[in-house]
Amino acid sequence: MLKLYDLAGRNPELRFSPFCWRTKMALRHKGLAFESVPWRFTDKAAIAPSGQGRVPVLVDNGRWLHDSWRIALYLDDHYPDLPRLFRSAGERAAARFIADWCDLALLPVLRPLILLACYDAVADQDRRYFRESREKMLGRSLEAVCAERTEAEQALARVLTPMENTLGAVAHLGGDSPNYADYILFGSLQWAHVISPKPVLDQASAVSRWFERMLGLFDGYAREAPTLRETMLVTAERNLQAR
Amino acid sequence: MLKLYDLAGRNPELRFSPFCWRTKMALRHKGLAFESVPWRFTDKAAIAPSGQGRVPVLVDNGRWLHDSWRIALYLDDHYPDLPRLFRSAGERAAARFIADWCDLALLPVLRPLILLACYDAVADQDRRYFRESREKMLGRSLEAVCAERTEAEQALARVLTPMENTLGAVAHLGGDSPNYADYILFGSLQWAHVISPKPVLDQASAVSRWFERMLGLFDGYAREAPTLRETMLVTAERNLQAR
Repeated sequence: MLKLYDLAGRNPELRFSPFCWRTKMALRHKGLAFESVPWRFTDKAAIAPSGQGRVPVLVDNGRWLHDSWRIALYLDDHYPDLPRLFRSAGERAAARFIADWCDLALLPVLRPLILLACYDAVADQDRRYFRESREKMLGRSLEAVCAERTEAEQALARVLTPMENTLGAVAHLGGDSPNYADYILFGSLQWAHVISPKPVLDQASAVSRWFERMLGLFDGYAREAPTLRETMLVTAERNLQAR
Repeated sequence: MLKLYDLAGRNPELRFSPFCWRTKMALRHKGLAFESVPWRFTDKAAIAPSGQGRVPVLVDNGRWLHDSWRIALYLDDHYPDLPRLFRSAGERAAARFIADWCDLALLPVLRPLILLACYDAVADQDRRYFRESREKMLGRSLEAVCAERTEAEQALARVLTPMENTLGAVAHLGGDSPNYADYILFGSLQWAHVISPKPVLDQASAVSRWFERMLGLFDGYAREAPTLRETMLVTAERNLQAR
């Protein structure tokens, strides 16, 4: 059984790392069973054998692996007879671009929409680390990053325009069925789906329709993941009933 | 012998359409010989049998084809035994995204850098058509689009950031060797290479090194294509010698 260290919030069921989602979908695609271990940003000791301090970290029979991209390459390499994440070298190279585009174009425009909600969702012991590391990386306070919501929504629509065109024309980035490129994009958007107080995708868009199909994969695996919005609704309902 | 209608400037040897370059590289990749016919924007009658008014238009044994993407699909479909432009359905779907990204993210930031130079390069009979059609499409005068050069250079660097990362990590978008995704990106940048008075790519960048490799394909096919810069230098030299 493989073991995956997966970023969790104060609520251990809340799993929101875009990079961990890429790996979880990849493991499901390969049909590999895995134990998912909730991990917090400050649990550096737990993943020290990986030689670094970030998740996803996958442990396969005593071998410690990190970095979602390298884990995907490893899975196809070491389990070549299970369904391929990349069916050709060209699919792998193009998926590298889709990863770079997600990391350097898409995630930056999602951040202003959800970073403060992330800060609210992280475990108490992680709050100081989260604020300090993000503010150092971005060079501004979390509040400053999230201040311009309308501009961020416009920037998101602009950045997604090419992908909207593509997913209007093809069923998946992998062609007729998903490959790892789909899981890269899915993980990025699932981050916002799990955390954002309101939907970030236009429900009528081709990207949103593709995202719904992705939520349905593997018997609705990703759809079953709790979201912050649901958690808040449940809490609100409980409070209401308690009155 | 196939026949390709290829956009030309006042100088019939100056070929600068990003979409025609995609098709020319695709034809060379397949090893298909073709006659290239210089075409001007206002030569609508010449390509009327294609049912529309833009190039590339390819004529294959009496069959008229248009649209670079549809031509690429046709070439793999009708010449399946020649080297594939797409080696899998996943490569084709990812190339569709790379095309949408080039058309909707990259070309818009190249435009302010070269649109006026294009206007100078087109044939006399095309000048009015070029100005009117572009100004209608962009909602501004050519001069207004090209006014903010520094901003456009910054926007180009920002848009290219993911591709810079990717081409620092992989040799081609097709993997070890180019596929149609490489020709899509190449055509987009070759537009600027042929037209721009000064290089638009940072010569030290991974994108520039990849572009140089692409210029060298098929015995330097694309490198041999005249550029506006060279043409201007030759003219300047002649004027100097005539003094």
